[in-house]
Amino acid sequence: MKKINTSPISGMQELLPRDQAIFDNIKNQITDVYHHHGFQHIETPVIDRTEILLAKAGGDTEKQIYKVFKTAETADDADQALRFDHTVPLARYVVEHENELTFPFKVTQFGRNFRGERAQKGRFREFYQLDIDVIGRGNLPLAYDAEVAATAVEALKTFITRDFVLRISNRKILAGLVEYLGLESQLTAISGIIDHAEKVPAKKTHECFEEEGIDAEKIKILEDFMKIAGPRAEVIEKLNALKIDNETFALGVNELDTVLGLLETQDFGPRAKVIGDMLIIRGLDYYTGTVFETFMPEYREIGSICSGGRYENLAGHYTDQKLPGVGISIGLTRLFFILNEYKLLENTENANPIDVAIIPISENEFKFALELSNTIREKGLSTDVVLTDKKLSDKMSYASKTANYGVVIGESEASGGEISIKNFATGEKSSLDQFLK
Amino acid sequence: MKKINTSPISGMQELLPRDQAIFDNIKNQITDVYHHHGFQHIETPVIDRTEILLAKAGGDTEKQIYKVFKTAETADDADQALRFDHTVPLARYVVEHENELTFPFKVTQFGRNFRGERAQKGRFREFYQLDIDVIGRGNLPLAYDAEVAATAVEALKTFITRDFVLRISNRKILAGLVEYLGLESQLTAISGIIDHAEKVPAKKTHECFEEEGIDAEKIKILEDFMKIAGPRAEVIEKLNALKIDNETFALGVNELDTVLGLLETQDFGPRAKVIGDMLIIRGLDYYTGTVFETFMPEYREIGSICSGGRYENLAGHYTDQKLPGVGISIGLTRLFFILNEYKLLENTENANPIDVAIIPISENEFKFALELSNTIREKGLSTDVVLTDKKLSDKMSYASKTANYGVVIGESEASGGEISIKNFATGEKSSLDQFLK
Repeated sequence: MKKINTSPISGMQELLPRDQAIFDNIKNQITDVYHHHGFQHIETPVIDRTEILLAKAGGDTEKQIYKVFKTAETADDADQALRFDHTVPLARYVVEHENELTFPFKVTQFGRNFRGERAQKGRFREFYQLDIDVIGRGNLPLAYDAEVAATAVEALKTFITRDFVLRISNRKILAGLVEYLGLESQLTAISGIIDHAEKVPAKKTHECFEEEGIDAEKIKILEDFMKIAGPRAEVIEKLNALKIDNETFALGVNELDTVLGLLETQDFGPRAKVIGDMLIIRGLDYYTGTVFETFMPEYREIGSICSGGRYENLAGHYTDQKLPGVGISIGLTRLFFILNEYKLLENTENANPIDVAIIPISENEFKFALELSNTIREKGLSTDVVLTDKKLSDKMSYASKTANYGVVIGESEASGGEISIKNFATGEKSSLDQFLK
Repeated sequence: MKKINTSPISGMQELLPRDQAIFDNIKNQITDVYHHHGFQHIETPVIDRTEILLAKAGGDTEKQIYKVFKTAETADDADQALRFDHTVPLARYVVEHENELTFPFKVTQFGRNFRGERAQKGRFREFYQLDIDVIGRGNLPLAYDAEVAATAVEALKTFITRDFVLRISNRKILAGLVEYLGLESQLTAISGIIDHAEKVPAKKTHECFEEEGIDAEKIKILEDFMKIAGPRAEVIEKLNALKIDNETFALGVNELDTVLGLLETQDFGPRAKVIGDMLIIRGLDYYTGTVFETFMPEYREIGSICSGGRYENLAGHYTDQKLPGVGISIGLTRLFFILNEYKLLENTENANPIDVAIIPISENEFKFALELSNTIREKGLSTDVVLTDKKLSDKMSYASKTANYGVVIGESEASGGEISIKNFATGEKSSLDQFLK
């Protein structure tokens, strides 16, 4: 009988071993792609100085941050809190170790971050983010925007089993257009309206523009602009056809052209598509150029499964050195939850976390079973020896719940007789020698 | 110029990419062994209810625990803190999910735990522990004590490059001896004296016993007992020769005999040794049977590099269900720091985190370089394309600092000419085709 509430705190994801194995598998596939694309792994402390974490934050972040303190404080304790993303500790890390790093610094971080959001289904307070970033010193070539997007596509391909589209824009394009229209002071409002356009009827979007006091002619231009989406050639042609005489606009179109151009040379296979798309804005203030989001067209309601972009200055609050960067993040805890809800995780229903269980019939076979387990392990298979003193049927039931294959070792097997291996899912038996070949 | 203190909080380990790669490699080797031995991975939240975390704690733990709170509290927020080890959250997990787990539950956890210790060199406030445990429901066969110890040895073999000895005892043996000597009330003191015996001269240990008011004859018996160490046959014979007529003692000797017996059937290779040793006590109160520690004889001052033992009841504070277990823990953050200090990490001085850097001479070769990078990645090698617009010598310098091999792509290579690959450590060049075979 329980004596105490043993559920995890609300908003925390806690998986059973089988789900954990699926989660780990996805996580490892993503981080393998990151590593294979030349991103170097670093880890920053989960606990950092509040002064660092909140240097440029405000609003929700400040409300949601977890502060930490010790019961017995010591003299060297600054005001401390848990990191809420990877970007802020990365900024601190790059400034702190600037002289020991090689730039452009291609870096990956994958770990848990913490936000005390209001608990609700599918929202987590402790969550994995799997990030890559490229940080330049002084400047950073645009080619890295394409490289980061390409890495994202390759990472998503390892576990997203449906079609998906990476949609790219460049913040300078809209900024230039708005400037050209003389609406600079309304850039934030207009960005917000476009960012929300896919979630509401076109009529509603139109009304929002009107409520901003924008005249009909300019609304028409904005609405035409918002419809521009497609492959590189088409998007660039349509943008040029708008004949917007503005330097920022031209620069943005040019950057988008370069990034899409580099991506178009790469073959991402039948399931992944990369397009330009003027509906992509990204809410976060600090993006200044390339921005992208990724959607599964069959499951639009899920929202973006991987987003990112270019920022002009990673660490402006900590240093005078200009550090431009481009990065993406996959929020795996939430994404795993959603893919599971939509039954979009690969069918692994019969897959147990362990490959082979060895079941010695009695203690007399322990020695042989332990030796055999080492032989099977050398083949790279995870192998559990069932060392309980229960009856054989109980041992078999245990084995079939944790492992995918079972090997029974009795007197005959232990003294040189043939050994067979059973596939628990199909019931099929075969020779262990054959199986291990 | 820095505008703010960007060092990590004191007591936090923050590695440069190259050291992080060595750390990750060790961590992966250990967790691979755990997995291959049939331990199922789970993760528990870093944040848990203080009521859970401190249910059986006291003393230092209570002082060192990190409490967490949000700036804006919500109604569902219980008193919360950061986990200080894996055992307490595991207890909660097993009780919470008891009906969905298969027992014995062979489980592994590897993640960061938090203790607000006073900052000092080699002590960390945020640290990785890599644990395995086997949890039984009601009872748990002794064979799992041997399996856990064997897994520890295999895990240590992957990264400990010197001789090491896993030393095993059983708490019941000393408890029975002390009972037999009529010194039950002094068990804790005597355990402490024996636990410290290796750190002080024999004379000092003798004096400590005297200070406890133990008479000379009994001290003699304790001192003889403490000297017992060696292979199974020798240790068991010497323990029996003490002729201690006590049930607990006999039970302890019998258990030790069984555990050592199972371990002696396994071949751990030339560097690893497993012995019985009466000096092993383990400070932690909750061990009740098998206890072990692991030392490198050439580096005794380092202390135990892997410790563990058997506990009678994992979750007595949370449930009436008896859940005996046996487990070990490798404290990797501290161990990595120490091995580094002692220069005992494998010589990886020339190893950069990335395998191959591809260096396109100009933007004209970007497309070819990106395609080539995918080909090399398919061979399982991490590959970085240097996309900067610097001059070739700068690109080469960058590549040689982050990657182990470099491939330069100019006009000739991009148009079908032969491609060579350079080993940055040796300066040797060879054909890329040959290299990839």
